[in-house]
Amino acid sequence: MSESTPFKSLAELGEFGLIDRIKRQVLQSPDVVCGIGDDCAAVTLPEDKLLLTSKDLLIEDVHFRRCWTDMYSLGRKSAAVNLSDIAAMGGTPHHFYLGVGLPTDLAGIELDNFCRGFLDEALAAQTTLCGGDTCRSNHSLLISVTVQGSVSATQMIRRDGAQEGEALYVSGTLGDSALALALLKKGETPSDYLSQRHHRPTPRLALGRALAEQGLASSMIDISDGLLADLGHILKKSSLGAHIDQQQIPLSPEVRAHLQQHPEDETTILRGGEDYELLFSAPPRRGDDLDQLSSQLNLPLTRIGTLLPAEKRLNIVQLNGSEHQVCAEGFNHFKS
Amino acid sequence: MSESTPFKSLAELGEFGLIDRIKRQVLQSPDVVCGIGDDCAAVTLPEDKLLLTSKDLLIEDVHFRRCWTDMYSLGRKSAAVNLSDIAAMGGTPHHFYLGVGLPTDLAGIELDNFCRGFLDEALAAQTTLCGGDTCRSNHSLLISVTVQGSVSATQMIRRDGAQEGEALYVSGTLGDSALALALLKKGETPSDYLSQRHHRPTPRLALGRALAEQGLASSMIDISDGLLADLGHILKKSSLGAHIDQQQIPLSPEVRAHLQQHPEDETTILRGGEDYELLFSAPPRRGDDLDQLSSQLNLPLTRIGTLLPAEKRLNIVQLNGSEHQVCAEGFNHFKS
Repeated sequence: MSESTPFKSLAELGEFGLIDRIKRQVLQSPDVVCGIGDDCAAVTLPEDKLLLTSKDLLIEDVHFRRCWTDMYSLGRKSAAVNLSDIAAMGGTPHHFYLGVGLPTDLAGIELDNFCRGFLDEALAAQTTLCGGDTCRSNHSLLISVTVQGSVSATQMIRRDGAQEGEALYVSGTLGDSALALALLKKGETPSDYLSQRHHRPTPRLALGRALAEQGLASSMIDISDGLLADLGHILKKSSLGAHIDQQQIPLSPEVRAHLQQHPEDETTILRGGEDYELLFSAPPRRGDDLDQLSSQLNLPLTRIGTLLPAEKRLNIVQLNGSEHQVCAEGFNHFKS
Repeated sequence: MSESTPFKSLAELGEFGLIDRIKRQVLQSPDVVCGIGDDCAAVTLPEDKLLLTSKDLLIEDVHFRRCWTDMYSLGRKSAAVNLSDIAAMGGTPHHFYLGVGLPTDLAGIELDNFCRGFLDEALAAQTTLCGGDTCRSNHSLLISVTVQGSVSATQMIRRDGAQEGEALYVSGTLGDSALALALLKKGETPSDYLSQRHHRPTPRLALGRALAEQGLASSMIDISDGLLADLGHILKKSSLGAHIDQQQIPLSPEVRAHLQQHPEDETTILRGGEDYELLFSAPPRRGDDLDQLSSQLNLPLTRIGTLLPAEKRLNIVQLNGSEHQVCAEGFNHFKS
């Protein structure tokens, strides 16, 4: 997935030169009947499945800072956060569409690295880049990604399927990404582990698909806005309340060590976003199946709470044993 | 398609308030199994068809200026230019996904008007808004649209199907939009007709579909980058040359009158973009069928030239009768 001829500037290459350059790096796939370079892409989908689509905008200095990330990682992350949405429905991703608004000062090598990262992440998920749009941006680097996937209608996992009495689970560990971001904002350098978790999130595709195929999860969401905010979406859609045990929230050794030194950062961990782990509900009797799946995938699945009737709202048992009602609110893009 | 409660600011409404506000304006459609408000939208598609997808970025001060357009028209145009890509494949549009990056100073009423325009255009094409993304933008208003449609594999019209000896046709009239833009850039006010053609383009969906269903066109593209540039795409993809008769290029009375006064603006008309008319190739023997279709749709279809072997390049017979080879180049986003 490398492009050997370097180029100096976008002005020199032009829009269609750039598109050709990207196209040469894309592997052909039999389901793509008409790929990059026509008015639309035309693809085939698996039969008898629903078409899943998600789209995300990533804007420089809103979602990322170029001084904090290398462009290869930014490319991978741009694809990964969209794949995570497919994972959260229990789906299989197939096709990507990439729009970029490029500041004229962006070096060719930076753009190449971005594309390489994007295409590597797409390839790792067995997906193909089929089209998109490229144009100039007067200010920030703008990235717009659309991903398409499929899922069988009987297996799809939505946000509104949770039932009272079911258990709440999360994959992996939470708060690594938020801690990395908090450190970057303070001008500190996160460890390699935390950096990777922030700049190179792993979409939990195998987990999402297994939960769907085995009928293990009744509702699911990926944690992009923060545990409490995303749990709030499930509760609102499913008309339920919940009870979370903070002691059970899975933390990495790094986050655990940090919280011992800085207990004031607890909120960052609970409300910070961009974990891209999966939060899902499951009947308590399926605990053994989930343990088995966790072993198979070599990925922790941790029970963190229980679904309650709506009037119970969202409660959290804190580390000191006291129980508090909390507000399920995450990052608000429009609040200053 | 109205939203009665006005809101003062995005900060007050918040990201999810905004999404709910848009969602309430979207009509339900039976093919949308899971619409706005989950990790992905999930939809069904017509059976045995190819899935068509196009995506476009529209960036303030690159693609549009807020001082030149009303927000309702901008909403309609954002949907229309994507529909035009579906038309250019001979397809039928189904689903929209809308991403917006919103400057914090954008008034609520402006955003409402934009959404109303977008949804009106989507509804007029019998399509549904199924999802998207909303976030803050530090600078410009950013609009990212993805449209999905379908077409039968045997009817799809690509850019690479043109044959030597076939005739080249365009729909409607060319240059209206480019002239409006040229006048705006000079600080002049275009007539209502020219303004409409620039700010409220009509996607030629019925034409595209009829050409596909009747097998009348061997290649097609929508004219977004300018006649010569878009013809250049067909020629490159189909490995052909062409000969265009400038006298035959269909012009509106307004453009014709302008050119009599300002013959120096001829290039603006030939190379200016955003007509969103369809340019297609057809066997000469299908001329009568095209005349009939033109009458049915009440839309001029004009033969403007002929496809030649590749070595003939692109030639244009000018109004004075002299023939010149021209360069098929349109707007380059990255050239200063």
